[in-house]
Amino acid sequence: MAGVRRISLSEALDLGPSWRHACHALLYAPDPGRLFGCIPLRYAVLMQMRFDGRLGFPGGFVDPQDGSLEAGLNRELLEELGEGAAAFSLGPGDYRSSHATASPPPRVVAHFYVKQLTLDQMLALEAGAPRAKDHGLEVLGLVRVPLYTLRDGVGGLPAFLENSFIGAAREQLMEALQGLGVLEEQ
Amino acid sequence: MAGVRRISLSEALDLGPSWRHACHALLYAPDPGRLFGCIPLRYAVLMQMRFDGRLGFPGGFVDPQDGSLEAGLNRELLEELGEGAAAFSLGPGDYRSSHATASPPPRVVAHFYVKQLTLDQMLALEAGAPRAKDHGLEVLGLVRVPLYTLRDGVGGLPAFLENSFIGAAREQLMEALQGLGVLEEQ
Ligand SMILES: Cc1cc2nc3c(=O)[nH]c(=O)nc-3n(C[C@H](O)[C@H](O)[C@H](O)COP(=O)(O)OP(=O)(O)OC[C@H]3O[C@@H](n4cnc5c(N)ncnc54)[C@H](O)[C@@H]3O)c2cc1C
Repeated sequence: MAGVRRISLSEALDLGPSWRHACHALLYAPDPGRLFGCIPLRYAVLMQMRFDGRLGFPGGFVDPQDGSLEAGLNRELLEELGEGAAAFSLGPGDYRSSHATASPPPRVVAHFYVKQLTLDQMLALEAGAPRAKDHGLEVLGLVRVPLYTLRDGVGGLPAFLENSFIGAAREQLMEALQGLGVLEEQ
Repeated sequence: MAGVRRISLSEALDLGPSWRHACHALLYAPDPGRLFGCIPLRYAVLMQMRFDGRLGFPGGFVDPQDGSLEAGLNRELLEELGEGAAAFSLGPGDYRSSHATASPPPRVVAHFYVKQLTLDQMLALEAGAPRAKDHGLEVLGLVRVPLYTLRDGVGGLPAFLENSFIGAAREQLMEALQGLGVLEEQ
């Protein structure tokens, strides 16, 4: 994406005070279900429709009071996803990558995390999300990502990727799906 | 949209047996909330992420056993939205328009309905949706439509409309928002 540059974590942590840090998480769970009884779903991968009409991952700006990137991330997950997010927490081991966006201002460096849940944890998240603080405000709804491609060659993941994404979210999604071995088998 | 043609209900009902009929509903509720404490939300308007990675309205194909267009629609709403949809039902008075799509096959005529709920009914729908029969399968999640435009002139409804929509869903959305008086004030 124009203006978004991948950088290392140490490079990101050395950026001056004019940069704001944000953290977002891809949460996923193995899903044994089959669409129409035949197409394997493989994983339930969570994204959200944001207040700005674009798809992104739960998370947000880290405040100085948060103490660490992960503390800020876990706070944001509770605000955006509700009580279901209290069942787990993300740590430095879940970190994957950082992307810097210098323009338009503000200068933001976005850190990306990936964490596996159980399908029950995922369902509890989805069921509790309408009671989250940010529901209907900064978060317009949670959606799962279709990982398959339908017979027409477009429906499923290819059509999903044609939607509008915030910041580096599309790249982060692709990177995580590559890690899960989903892209190779398309 | 290419291949989609608006037709009258009587014209639609006269189409031969080679046409399949589908019904979809835009459900909305007045919402007094304000985003970031200042931007009025006005209405919570419901759409869903479909299995094919595109945004659409709840609903689906009417079966010959359904007896009427609206009976088919109410059955589909229960399957896709779950128990919360039992709190209301749509009737002929909620009908708005029909769109015919001849190519690619199958030939489908899609009937569109609009119904106002209370915000509590909307929240109950959202909270119950993860327990619906089609959740995680044909329905990947419910989302509300942002009706405002953010300061950058793109975030909000304009960015939302850049997403991928199925069939006539984008036109149906615009038509309903016009009816609610939302578009004039953008
Ligand atoms: C009075 C008021 C008015 C406001 N008006 C506006 C407005 O008009 N427009 C507006 O956009 N905000 C507006 N805000 C929003 C506010 O500044 C925050 O952007 C908003 O609260 C979201 O915060 P968040 O921490 O949840 O961030 P997120 O949006 O999740 O993330 C923080 C930053 O990271 C970026 N980002 C998100 N996901 C990714 C990703 N996957 N990869 C890379 N970067 C990513 C975002 O663009 C943002 O810059 C307003 C706030 C207030 C209080």
